[in-house]
Amino acid sequence: MSVAKQDVRSLAEAARAASRVLATAPTGQKDEALRLMARHLREAIPAIVAANEVDMAAARASGKGGAFLDRLLLNASRVEAMARAVEEVAGLKDPVGEVTEGWDRPNGLHVSKVRLPLGVVLMIYEARPNVTSDAAALCLKSGNAALLRGGSEAARSNAAIAAALAAGVTEAGLPAACIQPVPPGERETLLELLKLEGLIDLCIPRGGEGLIRFVAENARIPVVKHYKGVCHVYVHAAADLDMATRITLNAKTSRPGVCNAAECLLVDRAVAEAFLPRVARELVAKGVELRGDPATVEVLSRAGVAVTPATEEDWGREFLDLILAVRVVDGLDAALGHIARYGSEHTEAIVTADAAVAGRFTREAQASAVVWNASTRFNDGGELGLGAEIGISTSRLHAFGPMGLRELTSQKYVIHGQGQVR
Amino acid sequence: MSVAKQDVRSLAEAARAASRVLATAPTGQKDEALRLMARHLREAIPAIVAANEVDMAAARASGKGGAFLDRLLLNASRVEAMARAVEEVAGLKDPVGEVTEGWDRPNGLHVSKVRLPLGVVLMIYEARPNVTSDAAALCLKSGNAALLRGGSEAARSNAAIAAALAAGVTEAGLPAACIQPVPPGERETLLELLKLEGLIDLCIPRGGEGLIRFVAENARIPVVKHYKGVCHVYVHAAADLDMATRITLNAKTSRPGVCNAAECLLVDRAVAEAFLPRVARELVAKGVELRGDPATVEVLSRAGVAVTPATEEDWGREFLDLILAVRVVDGLDAALGHIARYGSEHTEAIVTADAAVAGRFTREAQASAVVWNASTRFNDGGELGLGAEIGISTSRLHAFGPMGLRELTSQKYVIHGQGQVR
Repeated sequence: MSVAKQDVRSLAEAARAASRVLATAPTGQKDEALRLMARHLREAIPAIVAANEVDMAAARASGKGGAFLDRLLLNASRVEAMARAVEEVAGLKDPVGEVTEGWDRPNGLHVSKVRLPLGVVLMIYEARPNVTSDAAALCLKSGNAALLRGGSEAARSNAAIAAALAAGVTEAGLPAACIQPVPPGERETLLELLKLEGLIDLCIPRGGEGLIRFVAENARIPVVKHYKGVCHVYVHAAADLDMATRITLNAKTSRPGVCNAAECLLVDRAVAEAFLPRVARELVAKGVELRGDPATVEVLSRAGVAVTPATEEDWGREFLDLILAVRVVDGLDAALGHIARYGSEHTEAIVTADAAVAGRFTREAQASAVVWNASTRFNDGGELGLGAEIGISTSRLHAFGPMGLRELTSQKYVIHGQGQVR
Repeated sequence: MSVAKQDVRSLAEAARAASRVLATAPTGQKDEALRLMARHLREAIPAIVAANEVDMAAARASGKGGAFLDRLLLNASRVEAMARAVEEVAGLKDPVGEVTEGWDRPNGLHVSKVRLPLGVVLMIYEARPNVTSDAAALCLKSGNAALLRGGSEAARSNAAIAAALAAGVTEAGLPAACIQPVPPGERETLLELLKLEGLIDLCIPRGGEGLIRFVAENARIPVVKHYKGVCHVYVHAAADLDMATRITLNAKTSRPGVCNAAECLLVDRAVAEAFLPRVARELVAKGVELRGDPATVEVLSRAGVAVTPATEEDWGREFLDLILAVRVVDGLDAALGHIARYGSEHTEAIVTADAAVAGRFTREAQASAVVWNASTRFNDGGELGLGAEIGISTSRLHAFGPMGLRELTSQKYVIHGQGQVR
């Protein structure tokens, strides 16, 4: 299944050519393509599920674990959900051509900024085959040609999905190369892809930190990175403690394996006695292991709640599990200091009734999303109203936080004059 | 003058620490720093000019040419102009904290997007010492710590300028490391800088194509590239030919050595006879050498105007000189085809009275600025009203076209709830 250097370049050149057509395709044609992609996905359910069964058998034979197998698994209802997600993208507003602002110059020139596609987007991802259709739909709607390089374990599933998508694209009269799977191969072919400056405009890696670091370190093309989410919930002295309990529980336990789950609870000393035992009891009841600093251990031990002493490694750690680091802090500055030192600039939340304190927190906490009196779990493209997300950027260049359709575009200046010269 | 690896990393770490302070510095403090930077620049005129004289003598001794020496030269009036430019940045609107949009979610969450600095910006440039103060001012106002690595030929001038700027910064109570010159050294120290992912957020190289390619190929940190400007003026059949003449003359001759100057004139066949001889006579009178395709050569030869046959190398070439490639085309699609093949996505202009044609051109021409009935020379931060520019991006990630203060920021999501959970 490996591909030669030249093949990789040919794929990218085909994508570049297709991107020129797609860049000016009317919204109606793109939406028609998306509806046809969904229809072909549904029609291909037997073929996709059959291909997935082969991938699943190989993964089982190579000893992959349950969580991996669950991410890889496709069945009729999962493919149906993928088709519905593609149709939902058809319903989103087309970002291409949107005039984001306009102004007049003293010499009479009218200047406006207008969105245009980025060009060719390379997605690099691991075992989840639904990324193939999600990313393809978002790229197509935003006028970008997509190169989709999934993990080798999902190769057959991805090929079957991509074939169905391509059938929809061509039926709508768009070039098949708008959506191309890159056959997974050796690292060498990935390295080759990552060097195709001028052919690929953006690389979005999604997966484990190892994959993302490998891409970031080897790419000559721009990469929007999504590193880990070490998210904090800071319960300020003026917090409504019922609300703080609800938010902490939700941020930690509603889905502990995702990047916007909380990994660390910071509690003002003034409310530690009143807040820690009650929130800790509820967390422990949900199966959460608590790792506290000495002050937390003291308060919780006295209250008879199970707690382990935290080590230095527990601060700034992405547990992705039912484990929560807990620290008592002396006010806003100490909380901000902890976050500056240990946070990952992903999501930081404060619970407080004091608007001035919240104002300082939202200004000074450095993160793609800063949340006041709500769960960290809202840092998500769907929850924020972007419609869907292709990733969450934790670096500030180009986009910071959830990336939707608009974040898959750039903007050009359009200058309209009446013969002006300098 | 070379610096060791460790020194380079220490500089970047100091910049990172300073950036944390600067990120939340009030606008008033930043503006005070800018005014003090300008004052210290003026007070340091004798020292700066003396340092520059040493650089100039060394450059002369090493046989540098007149254009290079002119870029390197500082005198009292040039330093005064630098100080005024710094003061002008104090008058621009602070982008940090600007709320760019806000919306409500069905669950009552209020979501807004708020600008924040990028962090640490590395400028890499060549002989012009005024870039030191221009870049420092723009970075400081936008809340970014600046690492300034100028060319070795301007090392003494840049050190003197940076010392004056640092005096202003510290007098305003901000960390001196907000603005740091990187001593120019071997390529190895530059390579080391370009690898400091996590310490440097953005690299902006300004200078020749060789420098920019070196940076782009070796950087592990994000780079906003500014490659060449191969700008076209397309005179459509429905153009006002007086206007087209004026625009062509201005685009080619007002400053032929800059990136937004026109390098190629495309003329619809329908108006070639009426337009080419008149514009060509005026261009030749201004000293422009014309290189035409066969149709252009035929029309101009018949009209008795000097013209050289163009070679394939003349299309897509950045002359940066009083040379203009000229081609007769068969309408809008042919013009767009030529631009797609030979343009550099910098600036493309159309002259036409037909709004529908202009609409298609502005939609379909791929460039950071598309101009209708005005000169290509307006693709400039100052002319477009950005206040000042730190560079012009010719790639679409993060920014496309002139980059002002806003393009030196990112945006974070601020989410305000009343206890919402998922």
